[in-house]
Amino acid sequence: MMMMDDEMENGRSVYQDKPRTFPAVRSKSYSPLIFRILRQINPRVLAIFLLAVFGGVFYVGARTSPIVVFVFMICIISFCFAVYLTKWVLAKDEGPPEMSQISDAIRDGAEGFFRTQYGTISKMAFLLALVILSIYLFRTSTPQQEAAGIGRLSSAFITVAAFLLGALCSGIAGYVGMWVSVRANVRVSSAARRSAREALQVAVRAGGFSAIVVVGMAVFGVAILYATFYYWLEVDSPGSMRVTDLPLLLVGYGFGASFVALFAQLGGGIYTKAADVGADLVGKVEQGIPEDDPRNPAVIADLVGDNVGDCAARGADLFESIAAEIISAMILGGTMAQKCKIDDPSGFILFPLVVHSFDLVVSSAGILSIRGTRDPGTLGAIEDPMTILQKGYSVAIVLAVLTFGVSTRWLLYTEQAPSAWLNFALCGLVGIITAYAFVWISKYYTDYKHEPVKTLALASSTGHGTNIIAGVALGLESTALPVLVISVAIVSAFWLGHTSGLMDESGNPTGGLFGTAVATMGMLSTAAYVLTMDMFGPIADNAGGIVEMGQQPESVREITDVLDAVGNTTKATTKGFAIGSAALASFLLFSAYMDEVSSFVRVPFEQVDIAVPEVFVGGLLGSMLIFVFSAWACSAVGKTAQEVVNEVRRQFIERPGIMEYKEKPDYSRCVAIVASASLREMIKPGALAIISPIIIGFIFRILGNITNQPLLGAKVVASMLMFATVSGILMALFLNTAGGAWDNAKKYIETGALGGKGSDCHKAAITGDTVGDPFKDTAGPSLHVLIKMLATITLVMAPVFL
Amino acid sequence: MMMMDDEMENGRSVYQDKPRTFPAVRSKSYSPLIFRILRQINPRVLAIFLLAVFGGVFYVGARTSPIVVFVFMICIISFCFAVYLTKWVLAKDEGPPEMSQISDAIRDGAEGFFRTQYGTISKMAFLLALVILSIYLFRTSTPQQEAAGIGRLSSAFITVAAFLLGALCSGIAGYVGMWVSVRANVRVSSAARRSAREALQVAVRAGGFSAIVVVGMAVFGVAILYATFYYWLEVDSPGSMRVTDLPLLLVGYGFGASFVALFAQLGGGIYTKAADVGADLVGKVEQGIPEDDPRNPAVIADLVGDNVGDCAARGADLFESIAAEIISAMILGGTMAQKCKIDDPSGFILFPLVVHSFDLVVSSAGILSIRGTRDPGTLGAIEDPMTILQKGYSVAIVLAVLTFGVSTRWLLYTEQAPSAWLNFALCGLVGIITAYAFVWISKYYTDYKHEPVKTLALASSTGHGTNIIAGVALGLESTALPVLVISVAIVSAFWLGHTSGLMDESGNPTGGLFGTAVATMGMLSTAAYVLTMDMFGPIADNAGGIVEMGQQPESVREITDVLDAVGNTTKATTKGFAIGSAALASFLLFSAYMDEVSSFVRVPFEQVDIAVPEVFVGGLLGSMLIFVFSAWACSAVGKTAQEVVNEVRRQFIERPGIMEYKEKPDYSRCVAIVASASLREMIKPGALAIISPIIIGFIFRILGNITNQPLLGAKVVASMLMFATVSGILMALFLNTAGGAWDNAKKYIETGALGGKGSDCHKAAITGDTVGDPFKDTAGPSLHVLIKMLATITLVMAPVFL
Repeated sequence: MMMMDDEMENGRSVYQDKPRTFPAVRSKSYSPLIFRILRQINPRVLAIFLLAVFGGVFYVGARTSPIVVFVFMICIISFCFAVYLTKWVLAKDEGPPEMSQISDAIRDGAEGFFRTQYGTISKMAFLLALVILSIYLFRTSTPQQEAAGIGRLSSAFITVAAFLLGALCSGIAGYVGMWVSVRANVRVSSAARRSAREALQVAVRAGGFSAIVVVGMAVFGVAILYATFYYWLEVDSPGSMRVTDLPLLLVGYGFGASFVALFAQLGGGIYTKAADVGADLVGKVEQGIPEDDPRNPAVIADLVGDNVGDCAARGADLFESIAAEIISAMILGGTMAQKCKIDDPSGFILFPLVVHSFDLVVSSAGILSIRGTRDPGTLGAIEDPMTILQKGYSVAIVLAVLTFGVSTRWLLYTEQAPSAWLNFALCGLVGIITAYAFVWISKYYTDYKHEPVKTLALASSTGHGTNIIAGVALGLESTALPVLVISVAIVSAFWLGHTSGLMDESGNPTGGLFGTAVATMGMLSTAAYVLTMDMFGPIADNAGGIVEMGQQPESVREITDVLDAVGNTTKATTKGFAIGSAALASFLLFSAYMDEVSSFVRVPFEQVDIAVPEVFVGGLLGSMLIFVFSAWACSAVGKTAQEVVNEVRRQFIERPGIMEYKEKPDYSRCVAIVASASLREMIKPGALAIISPIIIGFIFRILGNITNQPLLGAKVVASMLMFATVSGILMALFLNTAGGAWDNAKKYIETGALGGKGSDCHKAAITGDTVGDPFKDTAGPSLHVLIKMLATITLVMAPVFL
Repeated sequence: MMMMDDEMENGRSVYQDKPRTFPAVRSKSYSPLIFRILRQINPRVLAIFLLAVFGGVFYVGARTSPIVVFVFMICIISFCFAVYLTKWVLAKDEGPPEMSQISDAIRDGAEGFFRTQYGTISKMAFLLALVILSIYLFRTSTPQQEAAGIGRLSSAFITVAAFLLGALCSGIAGYVGMWVSVRANVRVSSAARRSAREALQVAVRAGGFSAIVVVGMAVFGVAILYATFYYWLEVDSPGSMRVTDLPLLLVGYGFGASFVALFAQLGGGIYTKAADVGADLVGKVEQGIPEDDPRNPAVIADLVGDNVGDCAARGADLFESIAAEIISAMILGGTMAQKCKIDDPSGFILFPLVVHSFDLVVSSAGILSIRGTRDPGTLGAIEDPMTILQKGYSVAIVLAVLTFGVSTRWLLYTEQAPSAWLNFALCGLVGIITAYAFVWISKYYTDYKHEPVKTLALASSTGHGTNIIAGVALGLESTALPVLVISVAIVSAFWLGHTSGLMDESGNPTGGLFGTAVATMGMLSTAAYVLTMDMFGPIADNAGGIVEMGQQPESVREITDVLDAVGNTTKATTKGFAIGSAALASFLLFSAYMDEVSSFVRVPFEQVDIAVPEVFVGGLLGSMLIFVFSAWACSAVGKTAQEVVNEVRRQFIERPGIMEYKEKPDYSRCVAIVASASLREMIKPGALAIISPIIIGFIFRILGNITNQPLLGAKVVASMLMFATVSGILMALFLNTAGGAWDNAKKYIETGALGGKGSDCHKAAITGDTVGDPFKDTAGPSLHVLIKMLATITLVMAPVFL
């Protein structure tokens, strides 16, 4: 934050002489310690070091399974492709100094916040690691672990190491997302001065870089952990662990990833939306100046927010989604392979890693399919960027269907059930169709080309009140179709898996849950491309901000405006997508939890009966958790936004010259206010999410002991988890869709409909937009992280409830 | 509606000569056909007829059980007390003609809407009765029924007759609520011209009248049905039905009551809030005229709405709550008595009726404790009416604790477990404490004396957006404490019942669920007094409107304003109360459903396992139902309010003289618009609530047949019910509390805080208030009716799912 302050201090002194531009002093970018050390090393030494590391990794991989080697290969090729993308993006020019200076200010703010935020998060992570360590040191071990000779100590260290690695990778994923976005934004602005298509391509490739790094890291991390444990524990050699039990050791990784993603999303979400709401309420509504106007003291904080809230948080978030989904699918694959006594279970276990390796390939193809020149035959001044992005999506999806078929035939073919792979391929198709349906539904409810947003815009014409009522109603209603789609997907995928022909020893079909898992993978089989589209949004938004603040011509602003509007829709669709996959993944993790409990207590734990009062109470508490978490996330934004509003009002009153461009607003104060407030406010909801399942489980465990109800704690936690999942899905759908719809209803009115900019109708729409901000960018996207974190925390903390 | 139009037509012609007053022509009140017939009969004949009917009833009662006779006695005494109260209220003067004319206009509007609305509802009820009849004619009968010799035909007619009687009584309850409120409002206004205390007393006694009629009718209706079936089916004589199975025959009554209450609440809620929001948005926000100003064309529609939305709907609603709770507790009492082989089970079965008989007595005492003269020693111009009402509540609660203890000792003493009655008395105490806690929590979150509403008011000072965000956050957060209270209540009451010493044949404790049932009864043991406080609200609100429209002095308006504000708080507390009892009641009905399914399929049906994908999907769909229902209820209000806004705007433009009192606004057009729109809009959410559980159960029944999963339909419906209950409780708490808090935050600002009336802060608070209107008075109170209707519909429709 110091650097920022200095720069602003300098800026202020020169500003009064040269109005309408920013100071010429450029600050240096911050890099985390590890990168600084790496940079200081001799390149040759570094190359040798890296080669050695990769050699070691490949050696371990080769000892594990050829499939792991394949996964490693694809990941490394993808990382190379990501390096190519980032070099391509960075080679673009940064435009005139007035733009690059703004970009620097944004970068400094974002990096400063990132440093402080991740400092706090890492402290909490270490604390939690200690808690986990002590719990595991006092818990009993499972029969499997005993058979494998893994004592308490090694089991404790395995879990804690996996947790910390997951947390670290999640942190890196966030950093990467932010790193590229603060560099790409100004390059997109600059490209927008030349052509719309080029600007689109730069934004897509920048988004693609972080998407590929995020997905690649998730796959690579899990694969390395798997191979290392396999090699170290001498899995499958006589007297040691079976490979089918191995995936359960990876759960800590998923928990670490969820933990960091939750706080990243909360802190970033509060930051971005408090700044946005604060800036809008005074700037747009009270003073009537445009969005991202340089006279608004909160504008830099708002632009910083896009990076820390949308890019960094979403990187961590998708990383976590993919990691959780891979691990849960691996656990289920292992359990099923063991039940069916399949000779070589590694195909079933490693299947998710292969699917996501192909994901990297097909998404890269999708990203490359978006070219920098216009398609021949398109008319009009600006092409619809949505069409172009969707073309790329179609490329990725078609390829994904093909590669998915190949992977199922390769890995899921077994002689016991020769046609099982075909059933699972169909499950994958169910998942892909579900993903497509989710994208379509989100688009229907949030795009102003369709009826719902138009109706919402019309409701704005009768005032603020009807606008809010209509938006709330729209959001609540929009839960219906996704739930129906998810329901059909779960039931049909389960049924396809169930009838796959895989049987356990007593002849019962066992493939059902794995079928659901395969559908989840199908849904996420183009995750990297979807993440690309998502990252595109905040980059375009930032580019628009830079264009506006850099006072570029109207035609440039028009181009970035169109990109921004498309970014809004893609952001909404990604959220729908993330919710859908969270719904499926937590159903899988729930099954994994039941398996874990069974193996601890050595009796079958297969039913969670909601007719038992305590179990029903657990459900009530789980749903309540979602409501209170959302409340605290929203009110954090509201409270911080109020601080911003008061600060901005104060500046306008104390420095009347701001409005005439005669005095420079104090951007850094708003940045500082938002940063410290969001760090403070993220703790309460985050702590609630982590502590309450542990407390609930522990209390009911004791109650169960007193009232002589065995396993009560575990059952209540299971019910809490399921009710929280269901309520969380619905609440997140509600919040995301309502927020997106309000935003686009406002944008629709800004296109000139119903009175256009500045009308009363527009003012009402802005109110809706500000209400939607914390819904769609703070509470909503935190909720699906929360759902998965609840699932992983219950898995990791299971010994506490028993 | 015709009458209203005529009156308005007359009004308009004379209005221009004598501005600021209403026409002198008074219209006649409408009474339903049955009352008109009764009035035409010779009083002596009527008296003899009534005596004969009561004699018959008492004869049947005496043949059943002395307890039933006791219940009859208390009910009849209470009805006499109610007649005394209404005579006392009607004897009060109606004030000057300008007030009584407004009151007439309100009465006509309310009665007109009531007629049309209940016409529609009764058609739907008959349709549904036919559906039930046909389902029951094709279903198999239970072993109990076969043993009792009840064939399909009689079982079908019993259910349909109970359904129609429940629907009729629920309709009467609504009518009574409205009947008294349209008569009492003007008398309260008139009394307010003399003293605040007298106005309070009139409002309380008017509310008390309908409360006692509603509760009395619920008790009387169930008791008559019970006695009739007992007598007719020769229960407990050899070869016929056992008395412990009798309560299941009453379920149709609860379903009928819920059915009518749902549509009454939806239609009335949409009516009242569409008119209110529409009037506020144009009147208060755009034109800056006060609430209930006679120049606002929507003002009469708004005042009519208070009667049809709050009084009529709440009467039907509380009637339904009490009926559902009595029936579910009777079913559980019967089941338990049978399992424990208690010699005389009638005590356990009839216990709920006795509790509510005492409820009538203690609530009457509470109502009478509020006197018309000021307590000596109070200072200040106006006493705090809340204190007075709470004193009455304390009287009722203390008496309720005593009578509850007496009832448990009298009815629940059994030699098998001599101390069981003490445990159950403690369960009752748990319920009473829960009720008290709910009232306190609602007050804390919605009264502007406490922190939350003050914070909300402060959030209004930074704009519309932050006001809405803060209100949503407040509402979501306010779910926490009630859920914790309910959780503790369920677990502890279950445990008290469980350890009561009552055992089944194999020595397992069986009293747990009945303990929860007794706690529910404890919670509702002062229901009549709570309903009185609730009815008080809209009567006071209406009185305020009449005072304002009748242009009475400021001092009178001040008195009614204070009463109105207290009414807001009592309304919010009743809703919390209704939610709490709905949560408990639906848990009981859920158990009854599982028993019912068991007895149909002749295998135990005791577990609903959410680890089964289809069951999980059922839960998802159940929660979704709540979200979509709320969406449709809110959007119905929003859409209708938009129509009202456009109409009011049109009138202000086309008749510019309105604002200078030179031209009379066309009130009747707004009344007509709101009435027809709310009738149209209530169908969609209502149909959703009724049809979707049937469809879901039926689809999964077929799916279960195909996939060879027995009882799948019944399990999925059970899970749907539980998830809908949990989500419904939380959603209703959220909507009710947020709405109440917004309303009172506005009222707080109107007391002069944060800039007072007319400031920007006040405008933002009005936006919050309008958003809160459909939350707290349409969607919120419909939800707890919905929860119970889902429980009763699944019980009645169980044969469809099997």
